[in-house]
This record gives sequence, C-alpha cells and structure tokens, in this order.
Amino acid sequence: MLIALLTDFGLADAYAGILRGVIAGIAPQARMVDLTHQLPPGDVRRAAFTLWQASRFFPAGTIFLCVVDPGVGTGRRGVALLWEDRVYVGPDNGAATYLVVRDGAPSAYELTAGKYRLDPVSSTFQGRDIFAPAAAHLASGLDPARLGPTIQDLTLLPLPNLGHSGGTVHGEILHADRFGNCITSIGRLREQGGSLSLEPWLGQAPAASLPRAGLQVLLPGGITLPLLARFADVSRGEAVAYVGSSGLLEIGVNSGSAQEKLTLSEGQSVRLENRG
Amino acid sequence: MLIALLTDFGLADAYAGILRGVIAGIAPQARMVDLTHQLPPGDVRRAAFTLWQASRFFPAGTIFLCVVDPGVGTGRRGVALLWEDRVYVGPDNGAATYLVVRDGAPSAYELTAGKYRLDPVSSTFQGRDIFAPAAAHLASGLDPARLGPTIQDLTLLPLPNLGHSGGTVHGEILHADRFGNCITSIGRLREQGGSLSLEPWLGQAPAASLPRAGLQVLLPGGITLPLLARFADVSRGEAVAYVGSSGLLEIGVNSGSAQEKLTLSEGQSVRLENRG
Amino acid sequence: MLIALLTDFGLADAYAGILRGVIAGIAPQARMVDLTHQLPPGDVRRAAFTLWQASRFFPAGTIFLCVVDPGVGTGRRGVALLWEDRVYVGPDNGAATYLVVRDGAPSAYELTAGKYRLDPVSSTFQGRDIFAPAAAHLASGLDPARLGPTIQDLTLLPLPNLGHSGGTVHGEILHADRFGNCITSIGRLREQGGSLSLEPWLGQAPAASLPRAGLQVLLPGGITLPLLARFADVSRGEAVAYVGSSGLLEIGVNSGSAQEKLTLSEGQSVRLENRG
Repeated sequence: MLIALLTDFGLADAYAGILRGVIAGIAPQARMVDLTHQLPPGDVRRAAFTLWQASRFFPAGTIFLCVVDPGVGTGRRGVALLWEDRVYVGPDNGAATYLVVRDGAPSAYELTAGKYRLDPVSSTFQGRDIFAPAAAHLASGLDPARLGPTIQDLTLLPLPNLGHSGGTVHGEILHADRFGNCITSIGRLREQGGSLSLEPWLGQAPAASLPRAGLQVLLPGGITLPLLARFADVSRGEAVAYVGSSGLLEIGVNSGSAQEKLTLSEGQSVRLENRG
Repeated sequence: MLIALLTDFGLADAYAGILRGVIAGIAPQARMVDLTHQLPPGDVRRAAFTLWQASRFFPAGTIFLCVVDPGVGTGRRGVALLWEDRVYVGPDNGAATYLVVRDGAPSAYELTAGKYRLDPVSSTFQGRDIFAPAAAHLASGLDPARLGPTIQDLTLLPLPNLGHSGGTVHGEILHADRFGNCITSIGRLREQGGSLSLEPWLGQAPAASLPRAGLQVLLPGGITLPLLARFADVSRGEAVAYVGSSGLLEIGVNSGSAQEKLTLSEGQSVRLENRG
Repeated sequence: MLIALLTDFGLADAYAGILRGVIAGIAPQARMVDLTHQLPPGDVRRAAFTLWQASRFFPAGTIFLCVVDPGVGTGRRGVALLWEDRVYVGPDNGAATYLVVRDGAPSAYELTAGKYRLDPVSSTFQGRDIFAPAAAHLASGLDPARLGPTIQDLTLLPLPNLGHSGGTVHGEILHADRFGNCITSIGRLREQGGSLSLEPWLGQAPAASLPRAGLQVLLPGGITLPLLARFADVSRGEAVAYVGSSGLLEIGVNSGSAQEKLTLSEGQSVRLENRG
C-alpha cells in the first residue's frame, strides 16, 4: 500500500521525518513517497489544489496523509475519507474539498479511537500523534470503521472563481509555481479543432466552447497576452498564456518568472476573451 | 532494516543522493527514510537535539546515519554506537550526546576496517566513503565488532542549560523551527492536576513540581508571556508559551513567527515562574 | 530495480511527487530514490555534472530519470540511453554528455511509442507524461527497443575548460555547493608520492604529472591560494584549495563560504601552477 505525504512542515525540522518513522513502525510494509512538504504554512487551499492536481497520477488505493493544520489543538476534527480508489487522512479543514467535488462524497470517519493514536496526544503535533498512525493502520488493512464514527458534515472550502458570460471567461490567479508560472482557475481547457472547450474543473459553471482564433488573456493593469500552445512559442523573456499540464490556464515567461515580471499575486482577476 | 538519514548536506547538491546510492548498492533490501538533510551546516548540537527528538518515534532497530561533520578530514573518529533498540553511525563529535544521556552508554566501535569503507577514502566526503557503507553493512547484518575496535571515551557535548530554584525554572532558547516557534531547554513538562511537573529531559537537575496557577514565562527585554495549553489559545498574531510536542516549553505566535516578532535567538535565557 | 530522480522541479510544488506517483502506478516494485530535485532551473550543464559525479556510486542497473527540460514542448527529443550498468531517461539536451564521454556511446532510443506515454501528452510537463512512464516501464523489464527507434546523433554539450602547458593547468569554476565550496574543472587530481597526477576527467587533454611542492592556485583578482590536503588545514575563515571528493580541485573556506568570501562565480578562470 502506498502512502503519499503532503504537509507544510518543510524539510529543515524533524517533523516530516518523524511522520515517516511513525508510519514505518506501525506499517513496515507500507511504501511512502513525498508529494510535498513545502506547502505554504497553513495554506489549506493550496493543499486542496495539490491533492486535486496530483491524486489522479497516483495508483488506485493510495492513502494521502495530508497535514496542513492551522487549527491543530482546537476543536477541529480529524478524518479519514475513503473513495473507491483513494483515501484522505488529515484534519477536517477543507483540504479534501476539491476531491469531494470531483470524485463525489466519500465515506467519512472521524478519528476518535484512542487505540489508533499515539499516547499521549499533543496539542501541537497531531500529524505525529493521530494522522500518521491512522494512515499507517489503514495501510495495514485496518477496517476504517474502527477509527471512529461516520460523519456527514465535512468542512468544505469555497471554490475558486470561475464563470463565463457572453464569450468572456472570468477567473483568478491561484498561485505561482517554482518557475514563476502562475496557475489560474480558468479550466479545464482543451483544444478542439477550431475552438477551445471549457469544462469547469470543479463544476463552477456549465461547459462552454470558445472560438479559438483571437483569444487573449487580460490581466490587472491592462496587460494583454496571447493564448498560445506553449511558452516556448514566445521569445526568451516574453510573457505568454497557455494551457498548463493540469488543463488550467497558466501565465508564464519563457525562461523567466511571470510572477515577478508581471507582479501577479493570488486572487487577482483574470479574463479570457476574444478581442479578434 | 530501516536507515534514517540525518545530515546538513541540504538537498540542492548530489551529496544526500549519493549516500542513498551507496546504501542501495551495499544493502539493496534496506529501507531508507530521510529524517532531515537541512540541519544548519556544521551544527552538531542541532543534530544531537534532532536525534533526541525524533528517535523514539522510529521503530526498534533503526540505524541513524548522521552526517554533520565539521571536523571531516581531521583526526576525529568515526563510530557506530549500538543501543538495544537503535544505532548511531557517524562522526564521534557529540551528535549522539543526548541519546547517550537518555538511553545510557552504548556499545561503541570505531570505524577503522578498510573492508567496510569505499576505496579511496576522501578527506572531505566521509559520509559517502565511511559512514554510509558502515550503516549499510550493519543493515545487512554485519557484526558491528568487525567495523573496528571498541572505544569508551566518546566525545560528548555540554548539555543545554536547565535548572530551578525557589520555584523559578531557568533555561535557554535552543532554536526556532520552520514556523518560527522557539523551542526552549525547559522540560519535560507535564500537566498534573493543579500543578506542572518538571522532569529535566537530560537529567540536568532533580525533578520538581510547580503550582500551575499564574505561571508565566520571562524572556529577555522584559517580555512576559502566559503559559497556556496551546498557541491557538491566543488571538492571531499574539505570542504565547506552551508545552510543545516534545514536552519542552515553546514560545509561539498564533499564525505567525515568534522568532521574528520577539526577536529571539539561540542561547537567550528563559525563565518560568509564578508571578501570581 | 532502482530509479534515481534528478530534476529542477524543486520540492515546493507537486511536480516531483507526481513523478513518484506515476512510477509507483506503473512499476509498483521499483525502488525510487531522489538524487536531487533542486538543480538550478533549466541548468542542463549542472545536470550533466551531477550525473557524472553521482552515477558511479549507484548500483549497477540504476535508471536515472533526469528531467531538466528547458526545451519542453519544442521539437527536442526524449531519449532512453543504455550503458552496460546504467540507464538515462530524459530529454536529449546534453544532460548525458559527461556520461557519454566517460562511459562510451550508449544504445540510444527515441521515446516515440504512444503506448508507453500517458495520454494526453502535455506540452509543459513531459517528465510526467513521457519520461517517468518510460523509466517505470524499463524498471519493469520492458525491452527498450519498444520505446522507439534507435538514434545516433545525440545532443552533446561543450566540455568544461581544462588544459595544461608548461607546468600550468588551466580550468574554470563550475559552481558552488551548499557550503559555498567552489568546484572547478581541474581534475582528476591524485597525490602520487612527490607529485600530483592529472588525468583529465573528460579527456580534455593528455594526462600529466606536476611536482607537488609549491603548487598554488591562482584565481581572478590576483588571489593566490595554497594547495593543501584538506580545508581543515587552514584556520577558521581562511581560504584554501584542495582536491575534492570527486577528484576535482575545489576552493573552500574553513567553516565559511568561499563563494562569498572570494566572490567567485561560474566560468571564472582558475590556474594551478608551481610558483615555488
């Protein structure tokens, strides 16, 4: 069984390593891989995006141990969420929102059983004391119903902005990646002959189809970019919009950082429209 | 057999990856997990703390390959230290000090046998040439006595400051973690009814018990903080003292960095006392 | 079978994690280790160096999945290169150059077979869509000839500068590592009795032998350093030249950063000569 680790612990402290140690002790046969440990601290929305983006590339049955937990030590619940082909273990703080929207309602269990926690449970590191043990026991074949009672009222985040009217698509900047490419909420987009199909990735709006010719992307400050097939389609240092590897509209700079060059930041509005 | 890697190599260069390659070549069946590779360069004291903090969460028998080695290429010895339920392999520079204090004197072997080193041995990367091979051979079942002669006079670090008198506990700031939480040398602390028990984590002083009500933490510059149950007990941006996940007193800021907000640094004095 | 991952993806985004997920899905029995994910973005030359430096410490048969791919989405080819004891999978952009020079011409296959790619193939993340699947299928025993046609005209980088005349060796600064030690192109050097042998690591010049006594290293700005056995041979804060762990001349500062102290940068010229 594969456990994919996703946290905001960073890699400088021992916290991520300790999760690995706890898992190795409970489930020696489980395989562990890191999804990332460098989510922005406390950024539950980024965790939700990352799970949406990465999960479909993992094998069926993967357990995603997700510890982005700004509410640790408060009354927030811990949960195990089971879909037919994947599992989420972590706080009930909305990190699984986009999976719930995409994959449907999971079987949800609150992590209350003392038997499957470390003892004592700290108020500041429940990734170690509650979530890693739960993930490891599930990887060892534990019946999830033994972790605690089923629950229905999962915490969910608001969805990223995405809508369209009159041939214009409205969205927002989600975040920048390491290369300075800015991922937006506009997608999923697919080239289809002479048009571009839009199938909103989280169902925020009905599907639509846009005439492909002359499509442009409008950013704050009056910036206009062409929508091209790839960022290599412009000269080095030039900005471009393209459909990224997750089907979302991205803003990039060939061999540079769009975030820096265009001073983009999270939440800024983005429009895709035909100005032919 | 599990090998946990702990170095100050960082992750940008190939050094940590090369350790993994050497181990995979000698002990293909060994499992490897990273504890961390981002210890501050040359910081043996941090290595000692991290081993103390993390080791009890790893399964019995784990081999800790610890390469924080500012004395590489000098006369410092390499050692394998064996306790009943864990092993340290690395330089004899004090990184195992807190394990020795907590877990008792280990069987200690100096790593001198040429047969279990790479050939040639460099003067700058003995993690690759001496320590990773030794750890891998131990993981493969090698009798540790074949690595070299037993030794008695291990190098040990001074212990962190911790003492108490007249109801006041004295300690120091050890370091900050990724979130800016500052870990102190005051602990282990445990809530026990109406009092707080102190069992010095490295035996620096006798155990003690403090009346719980009115306990406050005093930092340099006249800063006084309440001792609360968790950092979520104060408003966002406010500082608080609490018992951290290792039982040590920590200074944190809810959704912020205590290190930055309070300009704390390693070695500064901390006091815990009742100012009713 | 072991797959070693080498990319410039960093560890903050999900990209490296997604590679691991794709591999785990196709080749559940394959072992994965990270060589590094923090190569400077787009730095193919650094990838080439890292493969040269690290590969000989990995077990025979290791598959190096190398995704440093500034040309993604352009016409650059993807390749699998097979030597007797290792495999390169990645873009045909020169990252394997130093392996080709050292280990000889590999069997080379262009990655064209749609059956061993994800569907669809994006224009921005072919590590996920083409290279990770190819590496995973090879780890599962796929005949490499099924990946695509053999090719002969591999893309190769220019080699680092290295030459000698009249007892003076000429080279360049390659890059600095985490500790600020600067690796140069001068090597491989070996102490041999009273002389220092030079066997150019990529065959850039004939072998040579230098009288050991009085050897000095000359850097830009008139800086002269002694060639000593190890950086611990000078006082803390002092600069020194020494033969590094890969047999290349390095410039270091004891307990400090040579890159900062001497303001060294990539491509600067370095000379090794006898000024006795």
